[in-house]
Amino acid sequence: MSRWEPDAQGRLRRAALELFEQRGFEQTTVAEIATRAGLTERTFFRHFADKREVLFRGSEELVGAITSAIAAAPASASPLDAVAAGLAAGGGGFHREFSGRRQAIILANPELQERELVKLAGLSAAIAAALQHRGVAPPAAELAGQTGVALFRVAFDRWLEDPAPRPYEVHVEEALTDLRSLTAAAG
Amino acid sequence: MSRWEPDAQGRLRRAALELFEQRGFEQTTVAEIATRAGLTERTFFRHFADKREVLFRGSEELVGAITSAIAAAPASASPLDAVAAGLAAGGGGFHREFSGRRQAIILANPELQERELVKLAGLSAAIAAALQHRGVAPPAAELAGQTGVALFRVAFDRWLEDPAPRPYEVHVEEALTDLRSLTAAAG
Repeated sequence: MSRWEPDAQGRLRRAALELFEQRGFEQTTVAEIATRAGLTERTFFRHFADKREVLFRGSEELVGAITSAIAAAPASASPLDAVAAGLAAGGGGFHREFSGRRQAIILANPELQERELVKLAGLSAAIAAALQHRGVAPPAAELAGQTGVALFRVAFDRWLEDPAPRPYEVHVEEALTDLRSLTAAAG
Repeated sequence: MSRWEPDAQGRLRRAALELFEQRGFEQTTVAEIATRAGLTERTFFRHFADKREVLFRGSEELVGAITSAIAAAPASASPLDAVAAGLAAGGGGFHREFSGRRQAIILANPELQERELVKLAGLSAAIAAALQHRGVAPPAAELAGQTGVALFRVAFDRWLEDPAPRPYEVHVEEALTDLRSLTAAAG
């Protein structure tokens, strides 16, 4: 085995996903992931801090992409339009097959679900902060942040289940349209 | 000390809150809570499964109250009107001082925050299920479930911070009105 491992990170990720699916996340060790990828544990730790990071790598970048796009939205954009633009921009980094398998692994493990929920709570707060930077008042910004996560989760689930599949950003737009119908019918 | 302890549960809850605030949740033991309440550990465990339950007791009842009220809403009520009625009914069991202190304790402890997020995710799923029982299609029900939790969190935070204070259900209605404005301005 040469010192240079072509696509070591991709091989480790694929090996980890297979093992998480076959044995469960809890029962899989880093040593097993490295062995299945034909690499060493040392190489694993050069790419990931721990086995959980195989699933959660990129969360910070996702939040960054969403909040940057919210900041870059035209001044005329309404708060939820800016949020929708942010979510659509964040979706640029999604890979449908990986996302679907990752989702199933997370749903099978309470510890991973908690982690995912903590990440989503952070996303809500980050969206609210980005909107406040645009001059949105704190109460509306908090509501839009919570609503943004609701839209994100619904659009993401629908995108994963869409047999077509239409792009993620189409599902963001549809979720926002559906939310407008729901709120218009209320009160 | 007589075998019958007047308001043992209330004394234990007050003692626990004080200790969680003074020393932190992690650093507080059940023995300390019992001692401060002038009761035994045995009595503590007759009322609570563990120290975390002092904070999370009642979560199931809350979800039950919300979903029952959603089921009982008039057939003519729109999905989000039914959700708002559910949230308002669930708020009947809230005590503002306890809720505010509980919130601060939870915000100071990542493990408790995770627990709270898991409870809220369960609430979202329960609202969606209650709406499906009313004949709401699954995609709209999921969106309304997620949106319901967004409304719950925002209304709850605003109620805790309201100097007036106006009742929780007024904040639920206001949050829904604000959400309608946000969505009407989008797209």
